[in-house]
Amino acid sequence: MSELETALRSVVIANRILAHQGVVDAYGHVSIRHPTNPERFLLSRSRSPELVDEKDIMEFTLDGKPVGDDRRPPYLERFIHGSLYESRPDVNAVVHSHAEETLAFGLTEVPLKPVIHVASAIGPNVPVWDIAEKFGDHTNLLVTNQDQGRDLAKRLGQGRVTLMRGHGFAAVGATVQDVVRLSVYLPVNARVLTAAMRLGPFKPLAAGEMESRGHFNPKAPESWRAWEYWARRAGVSHLLGEMP
Amino acid sequence: MSELETALRSVVIANRILAHQGVVDAYGHVSIRHPTNPERFLLSRSRSPELVDEKDIMEFTLDGKPVGDDRRPPYLERFIHGSLYESRPDVNAVVHSHAEETLAFGLTEVPLKPVIHVASAIGPNVPVWDIAEKFGDHTNLLVTNQDQGRDLAKRLGQGRVTLMRGHGFAAVGATVQDVVRLSVYLPVNARVLTAAMRLGPFKPLAAGEMESRGHFNPKAPESWRAWEYWARRAGVSHLLGEMP
Amino acid sequence: MSELETALRSVVIANRILAHQGVVDAYGHVSIRHPTNPERFLLSRSRSPELVDEKDIMEFTLDGKPVGDDRRPPYLERFIHGSLYESRPDVNAVVHSHAEETLAFGLTEVPLKPVIHVASAIGPNVPVWDIAEKFGDHTNLLVTNQDQGRDLAKRLGQGRVTLMRGHGFAAVGATVQDVVRLSVYLPVNARVLTAAMRLGPFKPLAAGEMESRGHFNPKAPESWRAWEYWARRAGVSHLLGEMP
Amino acid sequence: MSELETALRSVVIANRILAHQGVVDAYGHVSIRHPTNPERFLLSRSRSPELVDEKDIMEFTLDGKPVGDDRRPPYLERFIHGSLYESRPDVNAVVHSHAEETLAFGLTEVPLKPVIHVASAIGPNVPVWDIAEKFGDHTNLLVTNQDQGRDLAKRLGQGRVTLMRGHGFAAVGATVQDVVRLSVYLPVNARVLTAAMRLGPFKPLAAGEMESRGHFNPKAPESWRAWEYWARRAGVSHLLGEMP
Repeated sequence: MSELETALRSVVIANRILAHQGVVDAYGHVSIRHPTNPERFLLSRSRSPELVDEKDIMEFTLDGKPVGDDRRPPYLERFIHGSLYESRPDVNAVVHSHAEETLAFGLTEVPLKPVIHVASAIGPNVPVWDIAEKFGDHTNLLVTNQDQGRDLAKRLGQGRVTLMRGHGFAAVGATVQDVVRLSVYLPVNARVLTAAMRLGPFKPLAAGEMESRGHFNPKAPESWRAWEYWARRAGVSHLLGEMP
Repeated sequence: MSELETALRSVVIANRILAHQGVVDAYGHVSIRHPTNPERFLLSRSRSPELVDEKDIMEFTLDGKPVGDDRRPPYLERFIHGSLYESRPDVNAVVHSHAEETLAFGLTEVPLKPVIHVASAIGPNVPVWDIAEKFGDHTNLLVTNQDQGRDLAKRLGQGRVTLMRGHGFAAVGATVQDVVRLSVYLPVNARVLTAAMRLGPFKPLAAGEMESRGHFNPKAPESWRAWEYWARRAGVSHLLGEMP
Repeated sequence: MSELETALRSVVIANRILAHQGVVDAYGHVSIRHPTNPERFLLSRSRSPELVDEKDIMEFTLDGKPVGDDRRPPYLERFIHGSLYESRPDVNAVVHSHAEETLAFGLTEVPLKPVIHVASAIGPNVPVWDIAEKFGDHTNLLVTNQDQGRDLAKRLGQGRVTLMRGHGFAAVGATVQDVVRLSVYLPVNARVLTAAMRLGPFKPLAAGEMESRGHFNPKAPESWRAWEYWARRAGVSHLLGEMP
Repeated sequence: MSELETALRSVVIANRILAHQGVVDAYGHVSIRHPTNPERFLLSRSRSPELVDEKDIMEFTLDGKPVGDDRRPPYLERFIHGSLYESRPDVNAVVHSHAEETLAFGLTEVPLKPVIHVASAIGPNVPVWDIAEKFGDHTNLLVTNQDQGRDLAKRLGQGRVTLMRGHGFAAVGATVQDVVRLSVYLPVNARVLTAAMRLGPFKPLAAGEMESRGHFNPKAPESWRAWEYWARRAGVSHLLGEMP
C-alpha cells in the first residue's frame, strides 16, 4: 500500500473515531498533511465525519484551494487546517471540533488546565482565540479565510490546542493518532477539571508530569491499543491493517 | 414527487431526527405548513415521534380541526402549531419539545442566552411563557385550545423560540430543516451556558454575531450535511432523496 | 386472553421498559397485584428486570411468601411490594428502583418537588424513609421483612412515592402504566429540579397544577402513546396487544 | 472445566463487563490470581478490555514478569496487580480503572465517602495515592515498576480501593465478582455523593451499615443476578456457565 493510500485510510479512521467518540457531530473535521507533498493536505469534502469515506477525501493547497478539477463543496473552514500546516512544519494532522465540554472554558477566563495523565499532551497553557478581537463583532464565528486562519495559528503558537470562543477548539499533532488521542481526552479532562473545581482546591498535573510523556509513538503497544479499540468500535477495523 | 409528498417525507424525517437526537421522547411533536394550502398544516396523529410514518400524518386547519373524515386521535396540543402558523405567515414549520436541558431556564429568571455559534438563530431574547399568567393555577400546563395557543404565540412574537414554564419549548422556522437545527442546538446551548455560568463571568454571542448568520439556506452544503447525517443516524436515509 | 395472562404480560413489559429507560439496572423490580385475587401479587424471581420473561413471574401472598411449591429464589426485598399492597387497597402496581438521580434527595433535607408537568403525579410532598430511624444503624438498608415493609408503607402514607435514604425509591399506582410513567419521569424531574436550583429561585408546580392532572387513564391516546413507544424501544412490542 | 479454564473465562467476562459498563475504556485492566498457584496472576496482553479474549490472557509472576516464553507486549502497569497480590493474600482479583467520576476526588481533599448501599463495600475511608509523594514530579503517573506498585499497595493497606491522583483507582476483591461489583458502583457512588454535596449537608452510610454487608457471596442469587445481567449486556453470556 502506498504512503498516500495509508494516509487516506488513516484520515477516514480518524473521522470515524472522532464521530463515534462524540468529539465531532454533524460538524467538525480532521485532516492529514499529504505524506509526500508537505504543501498539500487531505480533508473530506463537506460531509459529516461519521459518513466520510476514502472517496470523499479532497486534496488542498495550504491556502485552502482544492487541487485540480475537484468541484465538490469543501468545508467552509478548511482554512483552519491550511493555516496550521503553514505555520507549523512539525504538524502533520489537525482536528477542529465543537466538543461541548470544552466550550465553557472558551467563554470564560478560567484556564483549561490538564489534570489527568491521559491529557498531559494538552500542555500547561491552553489559549483562547476570540475571532472578535481582530475581526470584530459581525462574523458568524467561522474561520472562512486564510487571514482568520493565520490569526488562529498565531494564538496557538507552539502549543497543541487552542480553544475558539463560542465555537470549539483546534488541535494539532505530529501524527493523526496523536491528535485524535488528544481530541478524545481533552473533553474528558474538561469534565474532570470542572468537577474538581466544584469540590474545591485541586492539584493539576505538574510541569514535569506533562513533559515526561515525551514523544508520542503511535506504534507503541499502548498507543496502538487505543487506536485499534476506537477504530473497532467505530466500525472501521477493516481499514486498520496489521498491528505495527 | 409532488410538493405534498416531499413535505410528508420531510415531516417524517424531522420526527425521526428529533427523536434520535433526544430532543423529543414519548412526547413532543413537529409539524409543517401544507405546501400548497397555507391555511392547513401537517402533523402526526397522537404517536411518539420515533414511530411516526407517512401514513400517520394528518391534515389540520389552523384552528386545530382535522381535515375531512379523519377520526384518529390527534395530539392534545396541536393548538401550539395552528396558533403559530396563524400568527406568523413567515413560519412553515413548528417544533414542540420537553427537552430537559431547557427546562430549568423556564423555571427561573435566568435568561437562556446564545453562547455558541450553532445556536445563534435562537436570537438575543428567549422569552418564557407561563400558562398560569393568563389561565391560572388549575391547568395541566398543556396547550389544549386555540386561546392558549394564541397567548403562547403572542409571547413568542417575532422570535424563533419561547420556553414554556414547567413544560418545554416551542420553536418555529421558515423551513423544517431550520427549526430542526435550532431544536437540536438549543439544548446544547443550554448545557454550555449552564456550565459557563458555573465557571464565572462569560461572554455571550454579540448582536452582530447573531445577525451575521443571515438567512438559513437548507440547500447549502453545510446545512444539507447535518440534515443528511442526522437522517442517516435516525434510520431514514431512504426518505432523503437527492442532495440538492 | 385471560386477565391473568394480560397481567403477566404487563408486568414483563413494565420490567423491560424500566430497564431500557435506565430506571432499574441489575437491581430494582416491579410488581402487579393479582388481577383476580387481591391478596396476592405477581413479581419476578430474583432476576434483573431486563431479562425478565413471563415464566420468571412468581405469585406471592401479601406477607411475601411464594404461593404453592415455587422454590426459585425470590427478591430479598419482595416485602416492599407486599406491604404496600397490604396498606393501600387502591394500589395495583409497585416499583422499587435505585435510580441515581433521586438518590441525592434521599440523603439531604432538600425536598424533591415536582417542577415539570409530566411529573405532576409525584404530588406536593415526597417523603424520605430512613430505615435507621426505626431499625438502627446495623441493617444493610434492604427491606428484608414485613416489619420493615410496613414501616416504609407508613411513611408513604397516601402518597405516590417515597424516597429511601441511601437506597432508592418506592412508588405505587392504580395501574402498572401509571407507576411506570411516574418512575420514568421522577428521575427527569430530579435532574431538572437540581439544575433549576443551581440557577437560582425557581417556580415549582402549583397545587392546582398537580391536581388538574386528575385520574390517569392508561387507555387514553396520550398514555398509550408513551407505553407503546417505551415498549417498542425495549424490544417487547410483541407483548403489547391491540391499542385500546 | 478445570479451575484454570473457569478462571480464564471469569477474567474475560470481567473485562467485557467493565468495558460495557464504562468503567474502563481503551485503558484500564482487570486480573485474577492464578487459581492453583497463588504466586501467579492472569492478565490480558496489552489490549483494550472490550476486545479481550481467552487467548489474550497471559500469566505473570508477582513481580510482573511474563511466565515462560510469552513475548507479547504486556500492560505497562501490570505492577499494580502483582504488588497488590503480593501484599494482600486475601485478594484474588484486581481492577485498575480511569473511571471519570472518581477522578475529581483524587485531585482534591474531599473524601469519597460511601452514601449508597450498593457501594457499602468501598469502606469508610478511601485513601488517595499520589505518585509524586515518593517518586517526584517527573513521572508520567503510570505505575511502571514494582517499587511504585508496592508504594501504592502500602497506601491501600487493608482497604478495598485507593484513588490514584490524576489517574484513576485500584480496587481489590476476594473474588472477581466482588471487585467488579465494587468497580461498577464506585463511580455511581461518586456521582451521587457529588450531587448530594451540592444540595447541602448529607448523611453518609453509617459504620454499621458498611459492616452489615458482611462477606460477599458471588453465588448468592442477588450476586449472580447482577453478574448474569452485566455479562449478557456485554455479549458474553456464552461464557457464563450454569447458575450456581
